[in-house]
Amino acid sequence: MPASRFRPRVVILGAGFGGVNAAKVLGGAPVDVVVVDRTNHHLFQPLLYQVATAALAPSDIAAATRALLRGYKNIKVIMGEAVGVDADARQVCLRDGARLDYDFLVVATGSSYSFFGHDEWARHAHVLKTLDDALEIRSALLSAFELAERCTDVAEIRRLMTFVVIGGGPTGVELAGTIAELSRTTLARDFRTIAPDSAHIVLCEAGERILSAFTPEQSRYGAAMLRRLGVHVRTGAMVRAVDARGVDVGGERIEAALVLWCAGTAANPAAQWLRAVSAKNGGVRVKPDCSLPGRPEIFVIGDVASLDGADGNPLPALAPVAKQQGCYVGKLLRTKIEGGAEPGPFRYRDYGMMAIIGRSRAVAMLFGLRMRGFAAWLAWSLIHLMLLVDFRSRLTVYVNWSWAWFTYGRGARLLTRAPRWIEQRRVQPEDRASTRELTQGDMTK
Amino acid sequence: MPASRFRPRVVILGAGFGGVNAAKVLGGAPVDVVVVDRTNHHLFQPLLYQVATAALAPSDIAAATRALLRGYKNIKVIMGEAVGVDADARQVCLRDGARLDYDFLVVATGSSYSFFGHDEWARHAHVLKTLDDALEIRSALLSAFELAERCTDVAEIRRLMTFVVIGGGPTGVELAGTIAELSRTTLARDFRTIAPDSAHIVLCEAGERILSAFTPEQSRYGAAMLRRLGVHVRTGAMVRAVDARGVDVGGERIEAALVLWCAGTAANPAAQWLRAVSAKNGGVRVKPDCSLPGRPEIFVIGDVASLDGADGNPLPALAPVAKQQGCYVGKLLRTKIEGGAEPGPFRYRDYGMMAIIGRSRAVAMLFGLRMRGFAAWLAWSLIHLMLLVDFRSRLTVYVNWSWAWFTYGRGARLLTRAPRWIEQRRVQPEDRASTRELTQGDMTK
Repeated sequence: MPASRFRPRVVILGAGFGGVNAAKVLGGAPVDVVVVDRTNHHLFQPLLYQVATAALAPSDIAAATRALLRGYKNIKVIMGEAVGVDADARQVCLRDGARLDYDFLVVATGSSYSFFGHDEWARHAHVLKTLDDALEIRSALLSAFELAERCTDVAEIRRLMTFVVIGGGPTGVELAGTIAELSRTTLARDFRTIAPDSAHIVLCEAGERILSAFTPEQSRYGAAMLRRLGVHVRTGAMVRAVDARGVDVGGERIEAALVLWCAGTAANPAAQWLRAVSAKNGGVRVKPDCSLPGRPEIFVIGDVASLDGADGNPLPALAPVAKQQGCYVGKLLRTKIEGGAEPGPFRYRDYGMMAIIGRSRAVAMLFGLRMRGFAAWLAWSLIHLMLLVDFRSRLTVYVNWSWAWFTYGRGARLLTRAPRWIEQRRVQPEDRASTRELTQGDMTK
Repeated sequence: MPASRFRPRVVILGAGFGGVNAAKVLGGAPVDVVVVDRTNHHLFQPLLYQVATAALAPSDIAAATRALLRGYKNIKVIMGEAVGVDADARQVCLRDGARLDYDFLVVATGSSYSFFGHDEWARHAHVLKTLDDALEIRSALLSAFELAERCTDVAEIRRLMTFVVIGGGPTGVELAGTIAELSRTTLARDFRTIAPDSAHIVLCEAGERILSAFTPEQSRYGAAMLRRLGVHVRTGAMVRAVDARGVDVGGERIEAALVLWCAGTAANPAAQWLRAVSAKNGGVRVKPDCSLPGRPEIFVIGDVASLDGADGNPLPALAPVAKQQGCYVGKLLRTKIEGGAEPGPFRYRDYGMMAIIGRSRAVAMLFGLRMRGFAAWLAWSLIHLMLLVDFRSRLTVYVNWSWAWFTYGRGARLLTRAPRWIEQRRVQPEDRASTRELTQGDMTK
């Protein structure tokens, strides 16, 4: 429909890699775009684990969505949470009761962590999806060392200095590696009573090997590098229970200060909203042009979509897939509105994937090349730096990284909002006669 | 007592400018030092307003206390909150019940904001003392614009875009100026429905002029510069009430999204702990060597102390006073322990004071010179940069500042933990026939 008389409205749900890229492509088109997101920022999720481990500040890896899209006068950004879609009325329902009309809808609401039916574990395990998640992990991690420094019960000190990471994918490997490094380098010199480098970091993987998306040789290399950093890598270790004081995993009880859940994600509940067919992970099954079967005005992209790649397997839940789908749907909508030849079905260009292990090692598959070690790490660093959303982020991340790299120091190591439990522990009076150190009483209560 | 057989223990309460500097001077001395602070970081408070207004990230102006004092093996840092002192037993009581022995005690617990007996106002007014305070102000400030963007009630939009700063001292002037700038530059281009540059910023001062510590000419200049930035400066405006929706001030009602309290501080309650004589602001009256009368082993420094200067007036509650007193008491303790000539009474070297107004203006009194305008701002910037605690902070602050200066952009503009009320507002269904914009219903409920 070229040169249509009415100006259609495109509503985009989610300001992640999919949503922001779809919006950018539609910038300047004869169309009104409304981007809706729960937060006010676009997040560079691949580096979120560095915020959780105090290497980067939140503002290094996130940018205000408004600022990103400021240049496009036809794009409006609103902060709000979508809770449903009325596909017949062509309206999105927001949490606060508002309804948003659309002519075209792009659903890019991403995924959350899934506890395989054990939602009660969510109370005790930390996940890493949002900036708030990352700041909570950071806070719990640093507080555990602070508590351990003031504790004299040997078993409790061991628990406070034990960190269990569940899931041996890239995120789990990255978290376990950086926590090990944090305790063995940055924190090692800061405490007087405890030895942070004796911290016990356990990476549990239910499958046979970690980094199962990589080659077996890369998995072995990754596990060896993690072990060198001091991480206990346990494969074939299925989680049976997660509670406030630890986990039951692989037939063993591990008392831990912190349980980090990096095992298995599920698409956010757009399939129910759209009454659509969902894949095993909850993703919405879409047509090759990312549209919903029977609803040509609705598109679903990124982690919340399920689409098979050229090899017949579902496309992975990765940032590049979301980004490419966002650009694709943006272009498709432009041709629908402005006229011109519509593009063919979506095709994913797979440039590869990477996982970083500690300070200067990585495994990567890039443009068909298998890489590992420092070269892979260098490739990883450069690519991530280039992908960061604006120049300023790049510059300050570079400063922070270089500084951390050369000094093993972590500038962002701040506890804002200390977890309440740090003050609630009951500590017994100091026994002046026996010791001049702080003694801490029955911490198991 | 030179070459004493026992190794005395010095407990320092508070890791602000006073506490950290006292600890540093005692680093390496034949003495065990324990630094106790509620947080894990030393904060460069003079720049806190820039975190509140999203110009800097928390890690730009704070450093882990452990990391700062890492080099001194005789210094131990613990995170905990002092709640009392048992001066007869020579013990500090912590919130969690622990007691810490001391041979010498340095109290440097700082000050809080005082509501002149109206503690109920504290629920509705924001103060700016800690990183958490700053992040809450930032969150409330940015959320108000987000809510206004989705609102159609004209009176409510006006309320959401009204910010009242109470207290015309340097902090109030700095906050009002930067909020005005934020709304008139950075945010101005980001919204589609509201015009952030129509935000209403009111600075209320009960006295006759703002910046009363400066010369009348500097006060006039400061007020003129603030007005040029769009701040409504109201002097002789006494606050009568603060509630959830605004303030009664100077006989007028101002409905506001945010009330910032920068009027009057009071020393933290060390005077009660020590059963000591306190000054009008609650500060502990100390002897000219900063020790407590009758308790030569207890020293009180910084905002929590009250000591008259050479001119007979109490020393101001400023960072340089705390820093110099910290260094002084550190040296005094070293001579007590190691021997040598004890220093004379504490003398404050007054290098001056400054207040910054917006992006490139300031008033300053430096080394007896009265400065204003860009020269004062340049002096302010250089001095603050030099005073920042470690090299890395200096470098990233420099990058952030330069970037913000040249682009009017604010990198740290992130809403983590959105205030709950942003989701609780009830919004009425969109009236499709009348408008395609989001409508927001009865927001006064």
